[in-house]
Amino acid sequence: MSKKTVCIVGSGNWGSAIARIVGTNILDNPDTFHSRVNMYMYEEKYEGRKLTEVVNEMHENVKYLPGFKLPENVVAMPDLAEASKTADILIFVLPHQFVRGTCKAMQEHVKDTALAVSLIKGFDKDAEGNILMISKLIEDWLKIDCCVLSGANLAQEVAEEQFCESTLGVKKPEQGELLKMLFEKPFFRTSVVMDVETIEMCGALKNVVAIGAGIVDGMGLGHNTKAAVLRLGLMEMVAFGELFIKGCKEDTFFESCGIADLVATCHGGRNRLLGETVVKSDKTIRELEKDILRGQSFQGPLVAKEVYHTLSQKNLLERFPMFTAIYRICEREMDPREFIDCLRNHPEHI
Amino acid sequence: MSKKTVCIVGSGNWGSAIARIVGTNILDNPDTFHSRVNMYMYEEKYEGRKLTEVVNEMHENVKYLPGFKLPENVVAMPDLAEASKTADILIFVLPHQFVRGTCKAMQEHVKDTALAVSLIKGFDKDAEGNILMISKLIEDWLKIDCCVLSGANLAQEVAEEQFCESTLGVKKPEQGELLKMLFEKPFFRTSVVMDVETIEMCGALKNVVAIGAGIVDGMGLGHNTKAAVLRLGLMEMVAFGELFIKGCKEDTFFESCGIADLVATCHGGRNRLLGETVVKSDKTIRELEKDILRGQSFQGPLVAKEVYHTLSQKNLLERFPMFTAIYRICEREMDPREFIDCLRNHPEHI
Repeated sequence: MSKKTVCIVGSGNWGSAIARIVGTNILDNPDTFHSRVNMYMYEEKYEGRKLTEVVNEMHENVKYLPGFKLPENVVAMPDLAEASKTADILIFVLPHQFVRGTCKAMQEHVKDTALAVSLIKGFDKDAEGNILMISKLIEDWLKIDCCVLSGANLAQEVAEEQFCESTLGVKKPEQGELLKMLFEKPFFRTSVVMDVETIEMCGALKNVVAIGAGIVDGMGLGHNTKAAVLRLGLMEMVAFGELFIKGCKEDTFFESCGIADLVATCHGGRNRLLGETVVKSDKTIRELEKDILRGQSFQGPLVAKEVYHTLSQKNLLERFPMFTAIYRICEREMDPREFIDCLRNHPEHI
Repeated sequence: MSKKTVCIVGSGNWGSAIARIVGTNILDNPDTFHSRVNMYMYEEKYEGRKLTEVVNEMHENVKYLPGFKLPENVVAMPDLAEASKTADILIFVLPHQFVRGTCKAMQEHVKDTALAVSLIKGFDKDAEGNILMISKLIEDWLKIDCCVLSGANLAQEVAEEQFCESTLGVKKPEQGELLKMLFEKPFFRTSVVMDVETIEMCGALKNVVAIGAGIVDGMGLGHNTKAAVLRLGLMEMVAFGELFIKGCKEDTFFESCGIADLVATCHGGRNRLLGETVVKSDKTIRELEKDILRGQSFQGPLVAKEVYHTLSQKNLLERFPMFTAIYRICEREMDPREFIDCLRNHPEHI
């Protein structure tokens, strides 16, 4: 087997945290991987200098993951084509709204034998407005297989090397072996599952449920109610998977990408905070994004909107009272204080 | 169908919270139930008077659930035989160490057509020291069917009528219909499952996992690690069920008795607190029980000990590294700081 070259497409806090893992694992497996890892980084200014220059000099993403060194074999590069054209493994880790443009720009250069791995959470839409998985989008554009990695992995805690788990979704067993070598650490344990789209779906939908968990917190309700919201949310995720994902396996929801990520996201993270804030404030989501995220987008409301659109088209809103209520609350069509009432006659209770 | 008489055997905070639900549901269904509900209460003194007298005068369990009225058809009685002899439905809700003695005292009087429901969390032991479910113990002593009710149901929050869910485990579908009428409220939603022993097992084992979650909190670790501990704990619960419970269904773990109760218990409750304290203190469990529970027992360490005994006899300790570590930590044979290291090579990751 010839040695593999790895490129990381993206360099935010999650991209930088994963670069620490991937970079050192590559050095530990010199028979399998070429040591240099290109990390595509959108060029911006940092204290008057180019960010890539600062990162490569300091071996630290001083802007998005300050305080954590990057291995010296990880090299930040501002030119996407240059960074990705030699890659045998492409790790996608950037906000989902940039995936389409990025794939388009890479299309000409990517090796046809390359393998992609998506670490991106969220859905895209196809031409008819239906939900499209990011792995599918990448596969359609680049004509290569796309695997996924997803789990209860808040970037800061991964950078701190706190013990956690993650789920690798692959299409062929040999992809699992290769990717485990790239991602696994004693503090970052991976399980390999052949159910790529379910894993991805969990990563998107958990942010919707987290808004519900935040609403419970914002209303001052306790552990019982929050646990019920978490469970009913999970049951809607399972039902959604069974309806929309071919070969969706119930066991996948027991993996880190399923319950564990849901639990972590419903207790930490920005979508939970959004839910809490929505109860206490009259502002729109857009205004709250300005206040809390300095203009970035919350994932949950975007996913809730796409889910609502799909369910509504297929006349399935009644089967998903939580997803429906959270969409309406985010649109400010419904008072968040009515959230719990929408769950009292949940189809799961019949 | 002749009208049913209901007796509640036990009157702590959970017994009193459930008496509020059962008492009012009985009044709402006069064709199905006799209105009077006997509640067996261990007699003790309260401000110089008999507790049963005070409770029946005030319609409030002033000692164990102060601030919440009991329906007037619920009558506290200090004589167990008197309270239970007319009952068609016996609701057991008392600490598990008292079940055996209570059954023994009731044995002569119980109707042979009666139905029992256990709300008790924990295991008992058979003559060989093997794990025995409380429902089985009740069935063996009273020679009647025993169903169960278990879920994410912290008593105080149920008394406050905060929305939650619970799982009814039954042996025959008609038992589910009858018990749903008794326990279901708009704020207390039940699902009926034909898997009694798995439901009970979840209610016992979650307290072991909660100690692990508390250790994570005590060590100052974050959401990722806590989610991993919760998930690996759930996976050990599933594995335990598959090994020891005939007909154990994986779906049961998705019910309120499974993930929801686990999530609630790992974030609130005394066993989580115990885990946190074990990291910060050198005291024994017995000493911590004196400090924190004024001499009452923590459930988790008791269950961990019974589980350890069973696994050890069957040479299965390596399959259950979390249960094993928590037992050893509770016995003070292992430093809680080593807990996470026991999970790094968990069989779930292979």
